Amino acid sequence: MIRNAAYCLTLMTLTVNLAWAGPGLPEQSKAFFQPVPSAPPQLAGNPSSPEKLLLGRMLYFEPRLSASSLISCQTCHNVGLAGADMQETSVGHGWQKGPRNAPTTLNAVFNQAQFWDGRAKDLAEQAKGPVQASVEMNNTPEQVLATLRSLPEYVELFKKAFPQDQQPLTFDNMARAIEVFEATLLTPDAPFDRFLNGDVAALTDTEKTGLSLFIDKGCVGCHSGTNIGGSGYFPFGVVEKPSSDILPLDDTGRFKVTNVAADEYAFRSPSLRNVALTPPYFHSGKVWKLLDSVRIMGAAQLGITLTGGEAEQITAFLKTLTGEQPRVEHPILPPQQDDTPRPVLTGTGS
Amino acid sequence: MIRNAAYCLTLMTLTVNLAWAGPGLPEQSKAFFQPVPSAPPQLAGNPSSPEKLLLGRMLYFEPRLSASSLISCQTCHNVGLAGADMQETSVGHGWQKGPRNAPTTLNAVFNQAQFWDGRAKDLAEQAKGPVQASVEMNNTPEQVLATLRSLPEYVELFKKAFPQDQQPLTFDNMARAIEVFEATLLTPDAPFDRFLNGDVAALTDTEKTGLSLFIDKGCVGCHSGTNIGGSGYFPFGVVEKPSSDILPLDDTGRFKVTNVAADEYAFRSPSLRNVALTPPYFHSGKVWKLLDSVRIMGAAQLGITLTGGEAEQITAFLKTLTGEQPRVEHPILPPQQDDTPRPVLTGTGS
Repeated sequence: MIRNAAYCLTLMTLTVNLAWAGPGLPEQSKAFFQPVPSAPPQLAGNPSSPEKLLLGRMLYFEPRLSASSLISCQTCHNVGLAGADMQETSVGHGWQKGPRNAPTTLNAVFNQAQFWDGRAKDLAEQAKGPVQASVEMNNTPEQVLATLRSLPEYVELFKKAFPQDQQPLTFDNMARAIEVFEATLLTPDAPFDRFLNGDVAALTDTEKTGLSLFIDKGCVGCHSGTNIGGSGYFPFGVVEKPSSDILPLDDTGRFKVTNVAADEYAFRSPSLRNVALTPPYFHSGKVWKLLDSVRIMGAAQLGITLTGGEAEQITAFLKTLTGEQPRVEHPILPPQQDDTPRPVLTGTGS
Repeated sequence: MIRNAAYCLTLMTLTVNLAWAGPGLPEQSKAFFQPVPSAPPQLAGNPSSPEKLLLGRMLYFEPRLSASSLISCQTCHNVGLAGADMQETSVGHGWQKGPRNAPTTLNAVFNQAQFWDGRAKDLAEQAKGPVQASVEMNNTPEQVLATLRSLPEYVELFKKAFPQDQQPLTFDNMARAIEVFEATLLTPDAPFDRFLNGDVAALTDTEKTGLSLFIDKGCVGCHSGTNIGGSGYFPFGVVEKPSSDILPLDDTGRFKVTNVAADEYAFRSPSLRNVALTPPYFHSGKVWKLLDSVRIMGAAQLGITLTGGEAEQITAFLKTLTGEQPRVEHPILPPQQDDTPRPVLTGTGS
């Protein structure tokens, strides 16, 4: 009798699994998505080495890259907060609010390009932006180099990280080292990755329904690949423009980069990896609840009204994109020297 | 011949060592100073546990203890910058400059009391201050508790860290957990510690001369014990008041705590552990060079004019107080929930 009951239970489970995850869903998923690998990819023209990685980790946490000596990459891309900062838009030099929500650095190496408008082709190019933005770190390449050159540990480490270079300590090499570190900020082994790797039980039935909806309703059109996003530019509000608090009229997105009419209010689709960990949402950071974001996207991008159940199922699926967060040892930074430039708290133009 | 030369060299070294570090100096030093231990001390009424330590590490790095969700203990007490922030005085909520230079958290557990004026008896009491100061984290205990209670991981971890408590998640327990973590921020094995532990070759001759001067000139009067300071209150400018940029007239120090005339402009002597890593100096943070600080202290506290050589020798000794810096893994912080209070960037009164 117990044996029969167990048998019945197995059969029921099997039936349910077949209903939700039958041959179709795993194969369909593999056609659209790839799991996050546990090792960083090779970077074109920027090979990794232990020295470069250490240097990059130090620079990522180095507040002296900013004029104030208060703001580092880590400030807005906190490795303990899924590579973001929980702000609508980031706060920089002089407590100024920046124009857009900080995209996560986790898995960012798999994005086609960087920034919401894709204006940086890779993480190295990206890293040079905030350092110089008056609303962020408000610094200049010259001042950054003066700072780094005043610190003997950095001088040594740049030499070791870029042994081929006549002049290893440059602004570009700073950015390359940061890129090598950021490429290690990966979050493998999310439930969805286990599902992609063949473990059909890694998702619950609700999550599988959400995945089916995500594919069938068309979300996958802009959110696919390893990062489930980050691979193309799409007008926000292609079917129905969201309200102007969510889509501020003065931020025309990729149009600012290309000056092409078709790019007005186009943004790089964000990666949905770890999306449950990184509210608030959208480039404006105006929406705090993931469920609301899903509904807004349905209306704005697909012209559909998701039922309460559907939005919840898709949200449940999105939560399976939370992977293992990177474990990072806080670097010990070189001590200030007598000739190290001192913090400058004033000014907002560099 | 080579053997003779080697013998002569050995004899010379021996003579030099005897001259500078002869029986007197190590014993004399042991009477005044104790090495930094490699394990944290027992905290009265606040026993450590792995859960409490993890919780404390998370809270130390938790920006949501601040109203803005931007400022954590780590902001002004950076474990990568010897527990300080390289600012004259720390910058807090709304980019406001605080009144005093941030004292290091490293080895702070060995201070007699906390803050420059000793107004907190221990690290737990200290931790509650900046959270509420309008010029620092600008938060309230109620708001901190609302934040922590909204995050299920913290609710669980407080239970595990304080298993005896009916209500484990309290503002006091937040502070206790931070204290337990901070007590692990120790920097053992400085050259001077090795000297105290019997390795007379751990200091160079110049450093030993500096140590002798440090003792003989009277610096040791305020700077002794494990922390080489941190053990008493002393008027700044007891012999000769420094200029008012270094000793601002409106900051009367411990007088503000005790209201006793003798405490006017008295401050807790700072620990000199890792002092070479933590410019700028004094409660005002107005002096950036360690050598200048040594000269100023000679005049202000001892009424002596140190010769250039003497000040340099004492500075050389102070640099032997740099110990092994703590290796801290950045904690993974709990994800924001729908009901977690959101960042408040405005306002400067709590």
